[in-house]
Order: sequence, then C-alpha cells, then structure tokens
Amino acid sequence: MKTMKAIVLEKPKVLKTEIRNRPVIMEDEVLVAVKCVGICGSDIHYYEHGKIGNYVVEKPLILGHEASGEVISIGRNVKKFNVGDKVVIEPGATCGKCEYCKSGRYNLCPDVKFLATPPVDGALCEYLAVKEDYLFKIPDNIEYDVATLVEPLSVGIHGAIRGNVKLGDKVLILGLGPVGLLTILAVKAFGASQIIAVDVQPLRLNAAKELGATHIINAKDSNYKQLILEATQNVGPDVTFETAGSKETSILAFEITKRGGRIVLIGLLPDNEVSVNINSIVDNEYNVYGVFRYANTYRKAIEVLSNNLDKVKKLITHRFKFDEAIQAFEFVRGNKDKCIKAVIVI
Amino acid sequence: MKTMKAIVLEKPKVLKTEIRNRPVIMEDEVLVAVKCVGICGSDIHYYEHGKIGNYVVEKPLILGHEASGEVISIGRNVKKFNVGDKVVIEPGATCGKCEYCKSGRYNLCPDVKFLATPPVDGALCEYLAVKEDYLFKIPDNIEYDVATLVEPLSVGIHGAIRGNVKLGDKVLILGLGPVGLLTILAVKAFGASQIIAVDVQPLRLNAAKELGATHIINAKDSNYKQLILEATQNVGPDVTFETAGSKETSILAFEITKRGGRIVLIGLLPDNEVSVNINSIVDNEYNVYGVFRYANTYRKAIEVLSNNLDKVKKLITHRFKFDEAIQAFEFVRGNKDKCIKAVIVI
Amino acid sequence: MKTMKAIVLEKPKVLKTEIRNRPVIMEDEVLVAVKCVGICGSDIHYYEHGKIGNYVVEKPLILGHEASGEVISIGRNVKKFNVGDKVVIEPGATCGKCEYCKSGRYNLCPDVKFLATPPVDGALCEYLAVKEDYLFKIPDNIEYDVATLVEPLSVGIHGAIRGNVKLGDKVLILGLGPVGLLTILAVKAFGASQIIAVDVQPLRLNAAKELGATHIINAKDSNYKQLILEATQNVGPDVTFETAGSKETSILAFEITKRGGRIVLIGLLPDNEVSVNINSIVDNEYNVYGVFRYANTYRKAIEVLSNNLDKVKKLITHRFKFDEAIQAFEFVRGNKDKCIKAVIVI
Amino acid sequence: MKTMKAIVLEKPKVLKTEIRNRPVIMEDEVLVAVKCVGICGSDIHYYEHGKIGNYVVEKPLILGHEASGEVISIGRNVKKFNVGDKVVIEPGATCGKCEYCKSGRYNLCPDVKFLATPPVDGALCEYLAVKEDYLFKIPDNIEYDVATLVEPLSVGIHGAIRGNVKLGDKVLILGLGPVGLLTILAVKAFGASQIIAVDVQPLRLNAAKELGATHIINAKDSNYKQLILEATQNVGPDVTFETAGSKETSILAFEITKRGGRIVLIGLLPDNEVSVNINSIVDNEYNVYGVFRYANTYRKAIEVLSNNLDKVKKLITHRFKFDEAIQAFEFVRGNKDKCIKAVIVI
Repeated sequence: MKTMKAIVLEKPKVLKTEIRNRPVIMEDEVLVAVKCVGICGSDIHYYEHGKIGNYVVEKPLILGHEASGEVISIGRNVKKFNVGDKVVIEPGATCGKCEYCKSGRYNLCPDVKFLATPPVDGALCEYLAVKEDYLFKIPDNIEYDVATLVEPLSVGIHGAIRGNVKLGDKVLILGLGPVGLLTILAVKAFGASQIIAVDVQPLRLNAAKELGATHIINAKDSNYKQLILEATQNVGPDVTFETAGSKETSILAFEITKRGGRIVLIGLLPDNEVSVNINSIVDNEYNVYGVFRYANTYRKAIEVLSNNLDKVKKLITHRFKFDEAIQAFEFVRGNKDKCIKAVIVI
Repeated sequence: MKTMKAIVLEKPKVLKTEIRNRPVIMEDEVLVAVKCVGICGSDIHYYEHGKIGNYVVEKPLILGHEASGEVISIGRNVKKFNVGDKVVIEPGATCGKCEYCKSGRYNLCPDVKFLATPPVDGALCEYLAVKEDYLFKIPDNIEYDVATLVEPLSVGIHGAIRGNVKLGDKVLILGLGPVGLLTILAVKAFGASQIIAVDVQPLRLNAAKELGATHIINAKDSNYKQLILEATQNVGPDVTFETAGSKETSILAFEITKRGGRIVLIGLLPDNEVSVNINSIVDNEYNVYGVFRYANTYRKAIEVLSNNLDKVKKLITHRFKFDEAIQAFEFVRGNKDKCIKAVIVI
Repeated sequence: MKTMKAIVLEKPKVLKTEIRNRPVIMEDEVLVAVKCVGICGSDIHYYEHGKIGNYVVEKPLILGHEASGEVISIGRNVKKFNVGDKVVIEPGATCGKCEYCKSGRYNLCPDVKFLATPPVDGALCEYLAVKEDYLFKIPDNIEYDVATLVEPLSVGIHGAIRGNVKLGDKVLILGLGPVGLLTILAVKAFGASQIIAVDVQPLRLNAAKELGATHIINAKDSNYKQLILEATQNVGPDVTFETAGSKETSILAFEITKRGGRIVLIGLLPDNEVSVNINSIVDNEYNVYGVFRYANTYRKAIEVLSNNLDKVKKLITHRFKFDEAIQAFEFVRGNKDKCIKAVIVI
Repeated sequence: MKTMKAIVLEKPKVLKTEIRNRPVIMEDEVLVAVKCVGICGSDIHYYEHGKIGNYVVEKPLILGHEASGEVISIGRNVKKFNVGDKVVIEPGATCGKCEYCKSGRYNLCPDVKFLATPPVDGALCEYLAVKEDYLFKIPDNIEYDVATLVEPLSVGIHGAIRGNVKLGDKVLILGLGPVGLLTILAVKAFGASQIIAVDVQPLRLNAAKELGATHIINAKDSNYKQLILEATQNVGPDVTFETAGSKETSILAFEITKRGGRIVLIGLLPDNEVSVNINSIVDNEYNVYGVFRYANTYRKAIEVLSNNLDKVKKLITHRFKFDEAIQAFEFVRGNKDKCIKAVIVI
C-alpha cells in the first residue's frame, strides 16, 4: 500500500503531519495529485475550536476543501479526464437520489460528504480519489493557486444566481473577506451596474476597488450608512449581500435595502440569534435568500477567474509550502488584517 | 351639493357620524353606493391608537377599506360598468408611472392613495367615487357582506403567489385571524397538499378546519411544535406563512420550516425588533418573502370566494348597521375571541 | 437461475411470450413483482412500426413502461422499502452526473435508460430489478391498475409545471388521449380556473367532463374555434396544451391562445415539419414550452390519483390478463374510439 | 397657434414635408424639441407598402419612433425634468389600466398609442408633447444620434431578459440588422459567455466582431451550420435569438439549439406561415419566447450605450439632415448592404 502525507487536526490547535494510505481509485474515479489548497475561514475555525455548530471534530481530521491538482491516473470507466489534466475539485459528494439532488439543489443533500467537514477528511494531503463529476478542467492560463479560488467564488456565484443579480442592479456587498471580494466578480459577471463594497479594512477595500467595486466605503466612517444611500441615489441597493456574519451588517441589510429589493445572506453569525427588524421584510416586501454552499457553479466560476486573472492573482496574498502548513494556520489566524487568502502549495 | 353620512375618527377612541359632501365623479370614474364595509385590524388599531407606525391620523379620517357596493352612476368615459353592477373596490389607487407600477408591483408604489390610510379617507360612508380599474364586478351569488372578504383574501393570495405555493406543498399557517384563515383558502386554490393551521383560539381553529385545513393545532398545547413536525413527516413544512405578528410565531417560522423551504411573512409585530435565528436562513437556504398588501389579486379572490361561499359566509360572525358603527368598533376591539370578521352594512 | 415470462416484440406486429432470466438485484436494488402494466401509444407504435423516430427495435424488446408492482425482496443497502410494499416504477434511470441531472432536469439526461425504449427492455414481464430512488410507494386505496396511470399523469403534471398553470388560468387542452385527459386532473390540481377540453371522440369528451373539464368541445363542430373563444370571453385561453400531435391542433394552438399566453407542446406529430404561424409567437409574445417526459412528478401524481380515485378508475376501460397480452395490443390498436386505457394484469 | 415641420407619409413611396400645429402640452407633459430620429425597418416598410400586417396607413402619417431630443418646456405637474435636459422618448403610451399594464407587461397593452403606428403620428417632426414617464434622461456623454439607439437596443434587452441570458450561456444571434447587432451588446451585458453572430453581409459581421461577438459566421459558407456547432463544442447554443425574420434562420433555430435550451424569436417573417420542426420543441424540451417591443428597458439600454460609446457610434453609418429626410428613406431602402443605421438630424 502506497502512502502519502496529510495535515491532520487532532484536536483544537493541534495540527500534525501524518502518514496515511494513499487512496486507491474505483473504476469511476480519478486520482488527483493535490497541488494547492486554500485555507478557508472554516478551516481556521475548526483549527481553533474543533467544531462549527453541530459539526464536531471527534477523530483526527484532514483539513482543507479548496483544492486544485493534476490528474495522475484514471479508473477504467472515466471518460472525461486524462492523465496530466489540470483540475479543481468540487468538495461535496452528494447522494444523487434524494429530492434535493433530483431537483437540482444538491447543495442541500442531507447525505453529502463534504471535504473537511467531520467526519469526512479534507484535501490537505498529497492525493485524492474523486469521482469524475466532481472534477472540472481548468485552462492552462489559470495557475493551481488561483484555481483554488473557484470554491469561494462559487459561493458568490450561487448568491448572485439566488439573488437574480442582473443588468441594472445596484448591489451592496457587506464584508470583504475572500467570499465578499469574489462576490464582486460574481455580480459583475451577471451584469450588476453598480457595486458598493463595505468593510473596515483598508487592505480589503483596496482589493475591492481593483476587482471592480464602483464604490468602496469604510464602515468605520461615522456616516457610512449615508454614503451607501448616496451611492444609490438615496433609494438603497436593489440587492444586498451580507457576507460579514456580523450583527451590525445583518441589521443594516434589513434597514438599507431598497423597497422591493433582495437580500442575500451568506455570512454566519457567531451567535444564532440576532435582533433584526423583520417588519422591514413585510413593509418593504423584501425577498431574502439564504446561501448554503453552491450547486452547478464550477464551470461559471472557472470562466470568471479566467476573465479576471490579473485581478484575482492579487487576492492570494500568502503562499506556504506543504511542510509549513501548520505555521500557515497560525499565521492566517493572527493576521486577518494582512492576509486575504493564503494557499498551501503541495 | 349633495351630502352623505360618514364614520369619522376624530382622535383615538372618538368616532363620530359626520355629514360630508357626496363625491362628484370625473369622466373616468364610477359612483359607488357603499353597501358593506369590513372592519379590519388596522381600522381597530387606528381607532385605539390614532396611528400605525409612521401613519398618523392628524385630521379627522373616514375609516374602512374593505368595501363592496353598487354602481349608481358612471362617468362618460367609463366602459366596463353599468348602473346596478355589484362591485368590490380595490382600495389602493396608484400612480401608474413609477418603476413599481410599470413593472407590475404596484402595491409598492410610493404615491399610492390607500383608503383609510392617513390622510386618505376610507370607505365607511355612503358614496365613493372610484376609477373603473379599481372596481371589480362580483357575481350574483356573492352577497355584499361576503364580498368585503375579497380584500383580506387578496393578501393571502398575494402571499401564495409570492411563496409559489403549488401541488405537493405542505403549508403551515401561523395565526388564524381573517387573513390567516383566508390564506387557507388561498393556498388550497393554488394546490397545496397539506395545510396545517395554528392558533390559540378554538373558534378560529374550528373555522380553519371548516375552510379546509388538514391539521389544526392549538399553540397552547405544550407539544405543539412536535405536532407540527409530525404532521409533516418530521421534515417541516415546505412553506410557512407567519400571519400572527407575534414574537413566538416569528421565531418558530425560522425554526420549523423544511430545509430549502419558503417563509412568507405577512404579520407585523408590535415592535420592529425581534430576535430570530437568521443563521437558519443561511444553513437551510430558505427563501423569505415579505407580503405588503397585494397586486393583481382581485379577480382571483372573487373566484375563490365564489367557489367557497358556504364556508366563507361563516367567517362573518357579526353584522352591524351603519348607525351602529361606533358600537361595532368597541365590540370588535373587546371580543377578539368571539369575533372573526365584523361587517358594517350601509 | 430462476426464470420468468416476458412479452417480447420480435419485429413489427410479432409479439411473443418468452422465458427470460429473472433479474438478480444488486445491493441498492429492489425486486418488484410486476402487477399491472398500462399500454401506451408508444408501445402500440413500436408494435406496429418497430421504431419511433430514431429509436429502432433492433433486437427482441420487452415492451411496457407504465408499471406497478409489489416489493418481494430488497438489497441490503435499500432503506426505504420493505417486502410487501405497493409501488410504482419511474421508468427512466438517469446517469446522475451530467449537467441535466445535476440541475434538476434529469428527463433530458442523454444517458437515460428508459423502460421499453430500445435497446432497454420494458416492464411487461414478471419481475423487475429497480433502484430504490425510482420506486414510489402507493397508498392502499390505489389499486395496481390505477397506479399505472401515475406515468401518463406525470406528463400532464410536468406540463402544468412548465406552463406555470395556476389559479385564474383558463386552460385549453387539445386532444384527449390518456395524457390529454389526465392533464385535466393535473391543471385542476394546480388551480386552473377553467378547463376547455377538445377532441373528436364523444367517449373521450364525456370522460373529460367527468374528470372536471368545465367545457367540452367537439372539434368536428364546424364552429368549434368560435366555441373555444366564447368559453374564454373571446380572449383565448391563458394556457394551451397541445397533446393531440395533429397538424390541425398544432396550428390552432398558435392561433387561439391569449396574447401573452403560454403554449405547452406535448404531442408529437407524425411528420416533423408543420407549417405554423411563428409570427404569432412574436406578435403575441407567447411562451412556448416543450414537454419531454417528466422529472420529480411521481409523488405529486400519486397524490392527484389518490384524490380522484373514482374518476380515474373509469379511464381504465379495458383489462387483459398477462397471457392475453398479445391480443391486447391488437385490440388497442384497432379500437381507439372505444378504448381509453388498457392495462395488462400480471 | 405655433407650427412646425413634419415628414409625412401620404401613401406608399410618397413622403412630404408638411406644416403641422406645434403640440401644446398638458399639465403632466413635457415639450421636447426632437433632435434625432433613427430610421427603422418598420418605417421603411410603411414607406414602401403603406402597411405592416393589420396596421394600414389610411391617412397621412408622420413616421419615426426612435427619437431623442431636448426638453424645452414642462407642464406644471412635471417633476422629474427641467428645460435643457437631454432625453430619449419611449414611443409606446399605454393605458395603465388593463391587465397587461397592471402586471408589468405593458408592451402588450391593447390600447397602446405607439409613435408612427397608424393612426398615431410619429417623431419625424420638430416638437413632441410627451408624458414624463415616457421620457428618460441621457447623460452628457451620449450624443443625440447615438441616443436614438436606445429604442432598438431595448428590443435586444427585452429579449435577453425573456430568454434569461446569464453568465455561462452560449448565445447564437441569427441576423445582424440593428436589432441583431445591438442584441450582442444586450446579451453581453447580461453575462453571456460566448456570442456567435451570423449574417450574410460582411459589413454586419465585422460590426458584430467589434461589438463583442466571440464568433462571426457568414451564412453563405456552405458549412456554416457546422461552424456554429463547433463554436459550441458540438452541443448547440444555450440560447438562440432569431432576429432575421427569414425562413432559413427560423428553421435553423429549432434545429441547432442545445437540448433544454431557449429560443428567442424577434424577427417577423414576410409570410406568417413557415414550416418549422415543432417536434423538436417537444423532443428537446425547448422554451420559446416571442419578443414584442419591450417593457422597462430604457434605463438599462441607456446604461449599456453609455458603457459602449465607441462601439455603438460606428453603428450609425449614415446621417441625414431634416430636409434630406425623403432622400434618406430612398437611400436606406436601396442600400441595405452599406447602411447599418441611418439617423435624421433635426
């Protein structure tokens, strides 16, 4: 049995490099040599707390779910891939049988096996066996590190589809972590006419500007709500994306969105309960859409990245080698103001 | 100048019968002799508090907006109505020019003139001048008192459309005031497969059963949440209508709806702020739809009433004469457990 | 190896009873003892011509795809079924991996294996091995023969969903074969307000009336187009279903539908080419929807049947025993005016 | 009474300059000094034939409906415009009362008064009185001639909305007259990933390339269908726009579109009847959408023009002075290979 190295979370704040068995592919699977894995906020959260909500790391878990790699062997029933192909991996393997899978909302499949969501191991290892329908070729011009952004960009694209963003829409994006920033690209690709990006970090606001935000507003400004309104000719945005997962931005979304507008909720709050003005949903006849992961977005995300390569490269502010992975987690955790996206290169 | 009698709110709890000028119709207007006016919760609220939110009764106001009547004269450009027609009145006259009007969401028109919303006088008077596109003929089999239900039923129909209720849906209705009860008829007419009605008043629960609820559940039962779940094979309703405007039901809507489901918010809470679990919207990828009045519902509502005459007649539990109108308001206000809908017959 | 009997089409008009191996189930499959199989127009077409369009019977083929049965054994990974369950079989097994399957339109899967579509054998045999996600329990009150109607009713339900039929719609149904007739039930279940059914056979028109058509019109009447218009207050139907697959009805659909209306095409014409007025699509801004089989309809269809048992029983005008199957095909073929639906009882 | 000059069609091929009364504005109207009027195919058709379908020029008619101008006076109830504003005119004045107007599809209003559609006079005159909700301000960077393109671009935008064009879609556009060419901009603005433009005129194909078509294909090439397929990786376009109004392209649309795809019909054929394969709609489960004019598109169109000024300027290949208007009609009529869009400058 061949082996491989993997980055394993044993318990909160205890990451180790372990030797695991290299996966053996089935007839319909592809063996992928993992090349790059992005570190996501959820990885950091597992690292710090050993759980997210009901998902608890009860046995050692390989982290990482934003992965790109190279095809190194294929099962005999695999039709669409060849050795040498550059690919990204959609991390959620779904049952294909439930009502959600059958109706196109496979992201809600209750039996999904999602990389690095306990008890399913993630991608921070040398090799992964993946069914071909969860693999997507990336063109030569997208490098492996940039390709890991397909995953967080997919969240933004799914949000843009759910919120029906289109030509003419003034879009407000609250929170400019990687998902918030990539949502700028997503809504632009669906035709948004105006994009107002809000955060408190100058680093992220500048990144937003480069990605195509038409207005950047620092939420530390005392009159920042007024600035948002002015940017929308005082009617409020047609669509508001809440990606920050903060109490203040959650409340703001229900205050500032235009009458008849749409609110797309992506960020998760530290506490479940938050006092929002739900009468505002009634009075303004809002549509509010939750976003849980994504479905059928990978091809679209690859296209968006491919059309914005120079811009997206700058989002990867830090790169670490595989044997620096443990330091990488500590670095990302402690430097949220300096680091937009860190990638581990394997 | 001819005159007429009207029921006027002078200040909180002070209703008077006044003599007003009878309206003179324009070329495109119809003069309607008002026959019946339903008393709505908002009428009672104005009566008690002199305001609802930002709408304040600053000068004497004729109340009432759920009105039926008979055409007694027509302007010379009126094409669709004749003297003697039985009609109901859609109470919101919109501008026809704004983006909401032009795009079919005229209920959000900022310049709407809505009967009995200050400063626009309402329908509790003998005559109204109405443009013909706000009038709808009612068939002979619908009596004037029942016809007033077209207005609250319209709210339920608008909610059913916004929530995309259809064959196969299990629907939960929280709160069984007139709107909640009539929402039963609305969702049934759109094909709902199961209708679970929840309230605390036996009178209303029994009415729900007669209207076609497949399950009635008293929220005073200690295990009522469990009963709702059981009624949906433990997955929760596909669509939840919150019509009660209470804190408890608002919280429940976000707890109990099925993953991927829809929540339709109709009721307004006494206080704007309520602590709901908005992470649940994200995790469950809910769609949440506010409902503000209605648009393009009157013909549909007339059809639904016409198909359910025996059932809807029972919803009008109390009738008052025009000169008993003042007592009617006091009665309704004090007998919420005995009275479903009171109508003033003019 | 155990064996079973099967009805096999060897070449056009040559049906034989053959002995085949009884299927052996895999871990995730259910063995179903077939109880009833409806004879569909496509079965008759294969019987008469040995092909439908590009689908050619090149080796002996078991016919039949409208099947109900009883579970007689289950694979060890099967979770939702038990021995003794009454079931219907969704006849198209899809790949689960392609863009159509992933996005909820699995009926368009290019790799579907559909019962009795060459080269995939059908259901006219004693036993079938079926994956559990293609099986649906039927309640005790639905008998096996009626249960076979779930399949053609699914076509009508899929059409009603594609055509967005809802409360307030006036629906025209052209052609009253089993699919056309069951479409009456489908559109009624989605809330259609008026249902105008058109055919040339009194038998079918009468059946339409019993199923709930509000108007039945014989297309042999010289003024039948006028009658359709009158039934819709001279504006035409909101939604027209073309299920006849005839030139005349295809042309009519584009002539008579209301401005801004929807046309749902279900029937296949004998010849591909037909001269229709496609300028009418532009001038009237129609939406035209093709219907190819169905997706996610079985649960809804079972519900509709269960709510209309007395009515649907009458649609099964003829029953044949398994060893009369060959005569059944000859009978159905020659008696289209007397037979609505024939079922073979196994 | 002040007067003005107007270009009037007396009978087929007889255009005259006439003196007419200058319009007097009502309280809610704006007087616009017309600056530029584009010549549309329908203007040429009236000029040549004196009618289009059922619309017959029975008394002298002012032509032209693609108009821009300057506000020179305003009625006292006008709120949104000031003297000196640069504007474009939406040419269809609708009733505001019918079911189409109330539901947002005002382009289908049966009582519309549309400029230059008999018996309503058009815009080829010095002054027009227009209600303010049919006027839209244009920014300083859009010149009056380019502004006339808002009208034909609106058709493309309406088509893109009806066809739900979005990120990821491969779009085929058949026919590259002004509407076909501007549809390139429209679908790009809604996120189309690939745009394949087909015509027989090199002039138009080159223009398509400059506007952003990713592939241009000359339909005179013997293998042009093959080229279209290759451009879509042999699956066909997700969305096909038929704007040519020719028999060949109409047939092609139903042949080449991807399974499950959408077909948007914009062009009107010279003869109503055309033999298309409507079985293909069923087999491929197409959605087909007719496009009749547009609704709620003007703001979007102004934005698209403003973002593509350099490209759109080139579409106006010919400019004529007001007193050359009659020659302009003859020129356009005879030079369809040289002229993309001609504008009359007043």
